[in-house]
Amino acid sequence: MKVLFIGTGVMGRPMALNLAKNNVDVTVYNRTIEKAKALEPHVKVATDLVLEAKKADIIFSIVGYPSDVRAVYETIIPHCKKGTILVDMTTSSVSLAVELSSLAKHYGLEMLDAPVTGGDSGAINGTLSIMVGGEESTYQTIFPYLTYMGKTITYMGGPGSGQTMKLANQITIAGNILGIAEGLYFAKEKGLNLEDVYSVIVGGSASSWQAIHNGKKMILKDYQPGFYVKHFLKDLKLTLEESIGLDLPLLKLAEKTYSILSELHNDAGTQAIIEYYLSQAK
Amino acid sequence: MKVLFIGTGVMGRPMALNLAKNNVDVTVYNRTIEKAKALEPHVKVATDLVLEAKKADIIFSIVGYPSDVRAVYETIIPHCKKGTILVDMTTSSVSLAVELSSLAKHYGLEMLDAPVTGGDSGAINGTLSIMVGGEESTYQTIFPYLTYMGKTITYMGGPGSGQTMKLANQITIAGNILGIAEGLYFAKEKGLNLEDVYSVIVGGSASSWQAIHNGKKMILKDYQPGFYVKHFLKDLKLTLEESIGLDLPLLKLAEKTYSILSELHNDAGTQAIIEYYLSQAK
Repeated sequence: MKVLFIGTGVMGRPMALNLAKNNVDVTVYNRTIEKAKALEPHVKVATDLVLEAKKADIIFSIVGYPSDVRAVYETIIPHCKKGTILVDMTTSSVSLAVELSSLAKHYGLEMLDAPVTGGDSGAINGTLSIMVGGEESTYQTIFPYLTYMGKTITYMGGPGSGQTMKLANQITIAGNILGIAEGLYFAKEKGLNLEDVYSVIVGGSASSWQAIHNGKKMILKDYQPGFYVKHFLKDLKLTLEESIGLDLPLLKLAEKTYSILSELHNDAGTQAIIEYYLSQAK
Repeated sequence: MKVLFIGTGVMGRPMALNLAKNNVDVTVYNRTIEKAKALEPHVKVATDLVLEAKKADIIFSIVGYPSDVRAVYETIIPHCKKGTILVDMTTSSVSLAVELSSLAKHYGLEMLDAPVTGGDSGAINGTLSIMVGGEESTYQTIFPYLTYMGKTITYMGGPGSGQTMKLANQITIAGNILGIAEGLYFAKEKGLNLEDVYSVIVGGSASSWQAIHNGKKMILKDYQPGFYVKHFLKDLKLTLEESIGLDLPLLKLAEKTYSILSELHNDAGTQAIIEYYLSQAK
């Protein structure tokens, strides 16, 4: 099976390499071609997207925004050979996933939405969590490839439901990370030692993956991105778009605070949310 | 050392028994005396609070509300013998802790605030997390007794700082539990299978102690209290009172949602917050 992997950013790069390590015949494509070239000789590099898409049996993608997803798939779908399987792993819009799945079907192709969590370390170690929407038979065909990139792989249902799961996950993360930042800010303003506060939080029923990893970084003021503010804000906005008619006050609050944060810290990691609080204290 | 333990509720009962198991000479007192009697013959039971307080070297308490804490200590402090150590383990107000510590000092006594987390299971298993404020030398004297009740014991600073830590912890928990409830609600409204959603959440970077324990109960609609809505709401209100001049939007949101929830589910566990969302969907 000939695999084309589109997007060699922080996530895509190690994911493509993990496919190659497992003897998958993988060719990568990236809009900025130099980034893709850096992966040679581990993988082949395509310079013409459409030409390469024509040859592929399976196409994976993980790009930046829904507009990028749309641009990629509207370009390639009409040129792919019948039966090609398309797997978009970008965190993107539910409705776009449904729309592209439909377009793919029109051309005799199958498309899955399969966004991931686990960050760059999960991508490097092949331990991502992957949430899949689309035809279950297509999911089964593609499953071995997903195991090269991820550890927890969950089939969620029809087209778009991988994206829906990812958005639900981001709501939960929003609560966790706001809770840590606001708790630490309160404690700091009340004069507590934040190292002690961190120990108590991660040692009890307030603990979370976010507290352990991002709580520590907040205390150290280490805002290096594991996961960018700009990408989290994109996810929160996508979730709001999918929430018409639902009252999700926590999501609204998170979107508001991250919007304000993004004005100064767009390229920082999500843990920089502590700065939203600290900047108010001045 | 003669120990008096005041309050034999869900938490106080196993905590007093854990002292007794470690050969501490413990007498319990409870406003509703029958509840205390149920602990015989493991511990002695006092029927006259002041009489027993006079004889004690160390007094622990874990009662309901700050008003109960005030009533207990304003009653007994003037009667205790000099050098008696008072340890209030109720989650209570920071300013009350400071005030009572001062009153105790006036009478030649030492007082610590030492609220706990870890729920009834932590109390039963002696694995509570205990956050201590007050004189450090008093903390050191009392430390062995705390190890009979808890596993993680952290000295936070002067009077009131145990309470401050507990309130910061509750802000973080509020974010976690709202994040889980809102994420599950979104997923349910979008037609996902909640068992699958639970697996994805607890399997990745959205995971938390609250997700693992209370997320599961939300899906099962098991609202049996581990930690009561009414007590969590008390904690949130206490935290708001201590937050004057600070902008804590997540805390305000949690206080608002739990206030509404408490109208119908005051005696349920905190995980019943999912009902706040589900009731809006009707």
